[in-house]
Amino acid sequence: MENKLKFKVLKTKWKSRAGEIELNGVKLKTPVFMPVGTKATVKWIPLDFLKDTNYLGTEDRVNIILANTYHLFLRPWEDLIQKMDGLHKWENWDGLILTDSWWFQVFSLGLGAKKEELAKIQDDGVWFKSPKDGSKHFFNAEKVVDIQSKLWSDIMMMLDVCSPVEDISKEEVERQMNITHNWAKRAYEYFMPKYNDIRWVLFPIVQGGLYKDLREKSATYLSNFAFDGIAIWWLSVWETKWEMEDILSHTTDFLPEDKPRYLMWVWTPEDLIMGIREWIDMFDCVLPTRLGRHGTAFSENGNIKLKNACYFDDKAPIDSKCKCYVCQNYSRSYLHHLVKEKEMLWWTLISLHNISYLHQVVEQERNRILED
Amino acid sequence: MENKLKFKVLKTKWKSRAGEIELNGVKLKTPVFMPVGTKATVKWIPLDFLKDTNYLGTEDRVNIILANTYHLFLRPWEDLIQKMDGLHKWENWDGLILTDSWWFQVFSLGLGAKKEELAKIQDDGVWFKSPKDGSKHFFNAEKVVDIQSKLWSDIMMMLDVCSPVEDISKEEVERQMNITHNWAKRAYEYFMPKYNDIRWVLFPIVQGGLYKDLREKSATYLSNFAFDGIAIWWLSVWETKWEMEDILSHTTDFLPEDKPRYLMWVWTPEDLIMGIREWIDMFDCVLPTRLGRHGTAFSENGNIKLKNACYFDDKAPIDSKCKCYVCQNYSRSYLHHLVKEKEMLWWTLISLHNISYLHQVVEQERNRILED
Repeated sequence: MENKLKFKVLKTKWKSRAGEIELNGVKLKTPVFMPVGTKATVKWIPLDFLKDTNYLGTEDRVNIILANTYHLFLRPWEDLIQKMDGLHKWENWDGLILTDSWWFQVFSLGLGAKKEELAKIQDDGVWFKSPKDGSKHFFNAEKVVDIQSKLWSDIMMMLDVCSPVEDISKEEVERQMNITHNWAKRAYEYFMPKYNDIRWVLFPIVQGGLYKDLREKSATYLSNFAFDGIAIWWLSVWETKWEMEDILSHTTDFLPEDKPRYLMWVWTPEDLIMGIREWIDMFDCVLPTRLGRHGTAFSENGNIKLKNACYFDDKAPIDSKCKCYVCQNYSRSYLHHLVKEKEMLWWTLISLHNISYLHQVVEQERNRILED
Repeated sequence: MENKLKFKVLKTKWKSRAGEIELNGVKLKTPVFMPVGTKATVKWIPLDFLKDTNYLGTEDRVNIILANTYHLFLRPWEDLIQKMDGLHKWENWDGLILTDSWWFQVFSLGLGAKKEELAKIQDDGVWFKSPKDGSKHFFNAEKVVDIQSKLWSDIMMMLDVCSPVEDISKEEVERQMNITHNWAKRAYEYFMPKYNDIRWVLFPIVQGGLYKDLREKSATYLSNFAFDGIAIWWLSVWETKWEMEDILSHTTDFLPEDKPRYLMWVWTPEDLIMGIREWIDMFDCVLPTRLGRHGTAFSENGNIKLKNACYFDDKAPIDSKCKCYVCQNYSRSYLHHLVKEKEMLWWTLISLHNISYLHQVVEQERNRILED
């Protein structure tokens, strides 16, 4: 079978690699950072900014963004988006769209509630409650594929179970991993005859918590389904850097070398660089817009809180080396003023800087791999 | 004396005229609509959108925006902006900046409070309280000129008294008008020797409430100071359309024909068209961003509230004839989704549409005047 997603490794160096993905006429240079557009919008950023290297201050524009299956299922519903001719047209995006797995959102949206109240995992799928109206819904491996097809996702994620890392036995993590494996098998058996002629691709997701032998088992098993690429569920929200790196390093050893690897839900720029240096090709990260909203900006010298009084009359840009539109045109003083006066333009400007900053970081890493 | 502001009438038709203003190397085609950027930001709109005809869907980009003296005096202070090399550089704007008079803001910000508590008008100036911290401040004719010079305003407004239209006798309106006239004289006596070599210009503001004889007196008196242009305090917030048009028509009869006329604080697109057809050249209007924030968009068939359920699956743009970026790229369905999900991008998109819409309306009026 010919792959729909073309992946080419151009060069490897240390434990990193630079490559190219081609899918549906769009080329991605890897490693690639993918901005998060959960509800069919990258929060407070007109997408045309991400299409324009003048705004990003990068060599390459953004060619792929995320959207979230679970959120769009709850509202406004996949049927609407299908009727509107798919996500790309609806949100005015000409690059690729990867639709995120559903799981993390169930938990992160219901942190105050007991997990059992929000979602009940069975062998054949998962029951969960909408945090919006309390309505009950059932997802299984096949349904999640169908929802993503209605969104017109380029790269779909399979349904999986993300085990927590605390208050759980190894036996339970293994049981959940086996459910994930079973769902992967079902997802592919459903996906291949129905959608294989269509341009979409599906990634399985490696689980196994903090147990190296389980990660090895999961990576090995799911590699059978990694026709176009493979995702790794990440742990950075809870775990120490050292444990994260160790588990990741052990996991990538068991993945096919000729498929791109997507490390899900990376947390900080440092985690992203670490991932690149552990053979990872694709990343998402919600921090740029989440921090942007609170007036916090990435910089080479650590995060800057623009609300702080010290920036009142600071003529310098956020980061003097950053080439993004915001750093080229606005001072910290002006951004401080916007935050203090609650002038919402800061949400857009600081988030744009943060996305551009990560994009630049990844480009620099790529160039370091490619140079002799 | 040679005028700093060059104004050329290209053609008159009915009671309208099309012309050109040139000041500080920037050309404005008149009639001109000026977006409001009160606190050194046009609310939730990256200013680069206003520089780009692709976003506006117009022949000409936006070449002038407003800022507000009173707001910027209270925070962050004119001294900071001077230190930051002026408003243009600070907010990244390469067109002209007109700084609005202070008066309306005092009242509109303190609608719940008694007017006397917020501002006390004396013959020599006005005491007012900051609504932010209760601190007391004094403005007089000279100080307001100095503040605007520190902001690096291209077109300054003099200090004036805007009489209310209710609960006030004609005698009191006349007394307040005379104070305005006295302040105009003082402002010019102060401005001319100090700033006449600099590129800035100062406009007097016609007052006189709803009394035709007072409007005539005010227009006639202030025409002596209208070296570069003249402003007319507007009444649309409170008055009926018919009264407005009648007073305006009577006022413009007494203004010099070779100077641009700025009608302050126009309220709706209809008012703006009416102004153009009563010999007005310049307009501002806060409605585009104020409505945009609440999800309401201008259209040829009246305002559209995008939150309404009927737009859930509406594939049409806000206005099918509008050429702006938003109408070219987004459906009502998508904008409805943003509003319902509280995804703040709608503030930017709908406000941008509204500004573009007014800009297009004014361009159409201008073209109608110019065509044979």
